[in-house]
Amino acid sequence: MMENAEKQPPYAQFLGIRVTHISPERVTAEIVARPEFNNRHGIMHGGAIMSFADNLGGTATTANLKPGQTTATIESKTNFFAGIPIGDTATAECIPLHRGAKTMVWQTKITRSDGRLAAIVTQTQIVLEPRGK
Amino acid sequence: MMENAEKQPPYAQFLGIRVTHISPERVTAEIVARPEFNNRHGIMHGGAIMSFADNLGGTATTANLKPGQTTATIESKTNFFAGIPIGDTATAECIPLHRGAKTMVWQTKITRSDGRLAAIVTQTQIVLEPRGK
Amino acid sequence: MMENAEKQPPYAQFLGIRVTHISPERVTAEIVARPEFNNRHGIMHGGAIMSFADNLGGTATTANLKPGQTTATIESKTNFFAGIPIGDTATAECIPLHRGAKTMVWQTKITRSDGRLAAIVTQTQIVLEPRGK
Amino acid sequence: MMENAEKQPPYAQFLGIRVTHISPERVTAEIVARPEFNNRHGIMHGGAIMSFADNLGGTATTANLKPGQTTATIESKTNFFAGIPIGDTATAECIPLHRGAKTMVWQTKITRSDGRLAAIVTQTQIVLEPRGK
Repeated sequence: MMENAEKQPPYAQFLGIRVTHISPERVTAEIVARPEFNNRHGIMHGGAIMSFADNLGGTATTANLKPGQTTATIESKTNFFAGIPIGDTATAECIPLHRGAKTMVWQTKITRSDGRLAAIVTQTQIVLEPRGK
Repeated sequence: MMENAEKQPPYAQFLGIRVTHISPERVTAEIVARPEFNNRHGIMHGGAIMSFADNLGGTATTANLKPGQTTATIESKTNFFAGIPIGDTATAECIPLHRGAKTMVWQTKITRSDGRLAAIVTQTQIVLEPRGK
Repeated sequence: MMENAEKQPPYAQFLGIRVTHISPERVTAEIVARPEFNNRHGIMHGGAIMSFADNLGGTATTANLKPGQTTATIESKTNFFAGIPIGDTATAECIPLHRGAKTMVWQTKITRSDGRLAAIVTQTQIVLEPRGK
Repeated sequence: MMENAEKQPPYAQFLGIRVTHISPERVTAEIVARPEFNNRHGIMHGGAIMSFADNLGGTATTANLKPGQTTATIESKTNFFAGIPIGDTATAECIPLHRGAKTMVWQTKITRSDGRLAAIVTQTQIVLEPRGK
């Protein structure tokens, strides 16, 4: 279970997400705002921020699954508060709002290196039973 | 104005988003679900899907701005319905729900090549006046 | 099934929601913006608008359930575009974005009597199996 | 300013919302789940829960406005975790995620009398300048 959570998907590697802590109650990670993430205004694209958070919610759910179960994001909501300058290293912390048998809801805060809150993402993960069950 | 909208940000190029139509009332684009976008399950990562949509909403807003104005996404909501298999080409269509002086709201539908709706993204863009105004 | 959908809950009666059409593919209703719904500014409170929409999504899901199944809203997202003046009669149309075995997603547009779009609500309903199954 | 925040709108009175604390950093309130709020299943209707929260976000924003400014909810997102039984008294606490010059974002947690988290609402309020400014 935890092993699977620690094994990050190709997309996380593509973006350079570095997971720094995984437990069933909390996942943290960091990401460098690379020049490739540039939006029109010298800051990290909102899509990259949402990708960063989405990956944590998936990782956190996986850390809570029983053997054979899998998960998918069914919905995600982001509020953006401050831009992350290109070159900065942003950190994220993902904690559970709800961990049920059928769905789990996670909230991820993304923070700039100067400590300012950049975005909050709330997402719902569905828990999928092994096929044939 | 339209020129700026057509000029895509580095992140859009990084992901390989190809914008196929831009007008103030509608933006369309396509993206190949590259192996780098792989989630744990052979489908395109939800973060890549949200990135694809977010970029269209930004582009659509930019196509409606007056000279000197800029825009930022202030919030975004996604519902996911079906996975996009790696190797597939997904298309997106972004249309306005609201185009006001202070905010614009866009809805983007992302569709798989087999015609199935993969996700819907609704996002709010704030319209920022030129500094000093 | 359809009978249950047609039987509105006490809260719908409390607000005065009048359901005008129910089929598995579409639910419509109307509501008078009563003085009791007044916000601080002579318009219908956002909470009343969300209540109106939430009730339609529940009704629409119920119209798609199998015998014994029930449903609950697990998440709901609203964008507000224009105020509904007190005294106006608003109408709503609810259509499916997704009707799966485990979840259904509905989108409800609320329109003022002058035809202007007042709000859009997207909500996810979970399908609950009969106890003991 | 604070006086205006304390003066609740007619809809809050209609539902029986009792505001128990107002400061620019925090608003709390309670509501009795009256029989009129009944959903189909003996619990408080999701619309009533969203109404309760929406009212707090508006009150909290008003407590931060400058003279002449007003506010409106532009978007609201709710996740529901547990039903509130009819007859229960639910409490809500609303705290700021962002308080900017143009928008404020509030998060409201609604809790049952047994301490269980029933719902979380995140909403964006736009700050409207006095007309003529």
